Amino acid sequence: MSDPHVQHAPCRWAVRLEYDGRDFVGWQRQITGLSVQQVLEDAATRLTGGVRVDSVTAGRTDTGVHATAQVAHLDFPAGFALRPHQIRDGLNFHMKPYPVVVLSAVPVPSDWSARFSAGRRSYLYRILNRPSRAGLDAGRVWHVKHPLDTDAMRTGAAHLLGRHDFSSFRATACQAKNPVRTLDTLEVTRTGEVIEVRTHARSFLHHQVRNMVGSLHLVGTGRWHPDRMAEALAACDRRAAGPTAPPDGLYLVGVRYDPDPFDREP
Amino acid sequence: MSDPHVQHAPCRWAVRLEYDGRDFVGWQRQITGLSVQQVLEDAATRLTGGVRVDSVTAGRTDTGVHATAQVAHLDFPAGFALRPHQIRDGLNFHMKPYPVVVLSAVPVPSDWSARFSAGRRSYLYRILNRPSRAGLDAGRVWHVKHPLDTDAMRTGAAHLLGRHDFSSFRATACQAKNPVRTLDTLEVTRTGEVIEVRTHARSFLHHQVRNMVGSLHLVGTGRWHPDRMAEALAACDRRAAGPTAPPDGLYLVGVRYDPDPFDREP
Repeated sequence: MSDPHVQHAPCRWAVRLEYDGRDFVGWQRQITGLSVQQVLEDAATRLTGGVRVDSVTAGRTDTGVHATAQVAHLDFPAGFALRPHQIRDGLNFHMKPYPVVVLSAVPVPSDWSARFSAGRRSYLYRILNRPSRAGLDAGRVWHVKHPLDTDAMRTGAAHLLGRHDFSSFRATACQAKNPVRTLDTLEVTRTGEVIEVRTHARSFLHHQVRNMVGSLHLVGTGRWHPDRMAEALAACDRRAAGPTAPPDGLYLVGVRYDPDPFDREP
Repeated sequence: MSDPHVQHAPCRWAVRLEYDGRDFVGWQRQITGLSVQQVLEDAATRLTGGVRVDSVTAGRTDTGVHATAQVAHLDFPAGFALRPHQIRDGLNFHMKPYPVVVLSAVPVPSDWSARFSAGRRSYLYRILNRPSRAGLDAGRVWHVKHPLDTDAMRTGAAHLLGRHDFSSFRATACQAKNPVRTLDTLEVTRTGEVIEVRTHARSFLHHQVRNMVGSLHLVGTGRWHPDRMAEALAACDRRAAGPTAPPDGLYLVGVRYDPDPFDREP
């Protein structure tokens, strides 16, 4: 009780998570199968000895989508006092054997929100561009046999930068009221057989990254001129853009907060 | 018949393979479970329409060990005429859904051997050095919680370079007649949380890489002074070296041939 290192924890903790999306129905709880949210909340509940713990996330990733740096917050019961490494290790212990881990845990004020305090989300999309399917990275890349022209993809991507109505690139089931988003980055790079598409924005519409990549793929194959990206965007109609790229290649790789609570990590 | 592009194939083909070792009992056929060899040979047999095809490999990887560039040769029945991409794609089709793929296939002379013509093998060992276990790379890295001193590991590794009796680092079950090997490279590098150990030699003893890494781990934790690597080597006694590192982090990443048959790839 007199140990000055013990943080008499605020109820709310932020956690940064890594997971392999293949085994889950996505972030959000579903009756159809196991979700990352369920694994995390069940572990937190076990850590408290049985008091129900709820979570809120920065980005509700879909079935099969991965994360290297997802962020969520958890509300522990008042007076629940553990040190950051005990929260991290305790959650990791109870999340075994699922491929989800807490990379770090920090206490945050009760008005801090993993979702609403987030300033920017970053995603990576990986394409394996070679004749042979993935041996080592099955389920973790989109395998595209046809050689893709990354210069053309880069030119096409530039048309989407900035503030636009992204209706053409949102899922028909998307529930956002406003289809306008500001795309900060949409970079296409190649290293050998792997093409990486990196994108940053304050927020994205449902399936926006996968729909942008699905259209860039058409540009890469030569079926679309790069300028068609601008036409698809201007149409404000989902049917004007390309198909949705598979979840396998998508990774949530960062969420930015200002100030960043994880900077205070021990 | 008159198509000049069809190679009226020699019987022997070299293939370069990528695989995820987690699902297999290792390269070699075992009655205890599925091997990479069985998946490859069964696919080749199906490709011929039922004629048994045998293979020889450059390196018989153990259970759980991965490969990004394993090499094997296959003896198809005389007169079996397919183009290189047809061999590659045909094998890949028949190896579904297993996480094994042929990256390329080339015809080789009947006296060429994936095993005996090999000039040098290259392995990579990956250590995930952080408090949290692997979320995305479970089964594909060795997770070590304790912070490892890579400078000390590098100093320790240098003691093993050159031509030595590696009895201290060979599995007790190793069947090689001669325990002398020449280690060309044993490099330790760190990028963030990932430590990579890269090694090259004409050939390795059974478990040699994993036993060298198991000892370097002791150096990295500080339990061993780097000079103890030299003492362990000089002892010529398996009990003098560290434990065997797990297979999860080990990758066969290259086999060198001179001339390299894959240089003739179309």
